[in-house]
Amino acid sequence: MRIACVLDTDYEDSEFKEPYDAFRKAGHQVTIIGLKAGKELKGKKGEVTTKAEIGIEQVRPDQFDALFIPGGYSPDHLRADPKMVGFTKGFFDAEKPVFAICHGPQLLITARVVKGRKLTAWKTIQDDLSQVGANVVDQEVVVDRNLVTSRQPSDIPAFIRESLKVLEKVPVGSR
Amino acid sequence: MRIACVLDTDYEDSEFKEPYDAFRKAGHQVTIIGLKAGKELKGKKGEVTTKAEIGIEQVRPDQFDALFIPGGYSPDHLRADPKMVGFTKGFFDAEKPVFAICHGPQLLITARVVKGRKLTAWKTIQDDLSQVGANVVDQEVVVDRNLVTSRQPSDIPAFIRESLKVLEKVPVGSR
Repeated sequence: MRIACVLDTDYEDSEFKEPYDAFRKAGHQVTIIGLKAGKELKGKKGEVTTKAEIGIEQVRPDQFDALFIPGGYSPDHLRADPKMVGFTKGFFDAEKPVFAICHGPQLLITARVVKGRKLTAWKTIQDDLSQVGANVVDQEVVVDRNLVTSRQPSDIPAFIRESLKVLEKVPVGSR
Repeated sequence: MRIACVLDTDYEDSEFKEPYDAFRKAGHQVTIIGLKAGKELKGKKGEVTTKAEIGIEQVRPDQFDALFIPGGYSPDHLRADPKMVGFTKGFFDAEKPVFAICHGPQLLITARVVKGRKLTAWKTIQDDLSQVGANVVDQEVVVDRNLVTSRQPSDIPAFIRESLKVLEKVPVGSR
């Protein structure tokens, strides 16, 4: 599967790196999409540094099978760009898998795709989600059809496990 | 006037320091309230370092005349603490002046005090505010009765000017 990972600086290091490594190890292709191609992307803890392989203006949702949104301060940077918001919405319109952890669902709030959906997020974002009509659950991982969400770094193993399960279920014809 | 400044790490350096200095220069007393007394508080740019003079569990809104919420990542940290959210709500219940810039209004969203209020904020937070029923205006400063809000560091002079005007209008009897 081709997974789009949207990322900007100050992401939560482990929430990017651990699922990224696990998705690749399981045989999936992960492309790091930034606000600008080539931008150096350092995690907020300074433990991980990577690079935007491609810029948001060069991609369309139909080129990918799933979307992965790591947490930290990155999602709030990303949602300031309308192209990033439109790209995110595209995965929901096509009912493709979306994996978001911690502050990741901030991007979903701006894309207006959370109303009536069951999900979780970082504790402060849980409250934002409740106020915009989402069905928020405070547990390590929540799977609502193709949407997989988690709260924080300690939830990463459950987040990876359920995301991989969702990817396995996507029918080959839809790829 | 006694101004409560609520602050945690990774605040936007200038959005704390410049209004803080201006309020004090105008003769007001500013107390830095943190999640824990004595906590070292470094700005996200690393240009400003200060300390929490007092912890949130030691204060009540009736000890202050106004509330100041600098931006950056600090407000999202603060709103994870229910005592900080309750303290914020206290200023709205008593109709005391509140000055919030950039991401500052995130704390107001969690305190559920923005519905029907006219305000502004950092661009991504403007959208959050719209979705929870606030009347959002994209301009350098917005004054709605005792609530003064601004968007970003370039708005600081207007933010200081209007905040000081609101403080001048507070009747002495209410102090």
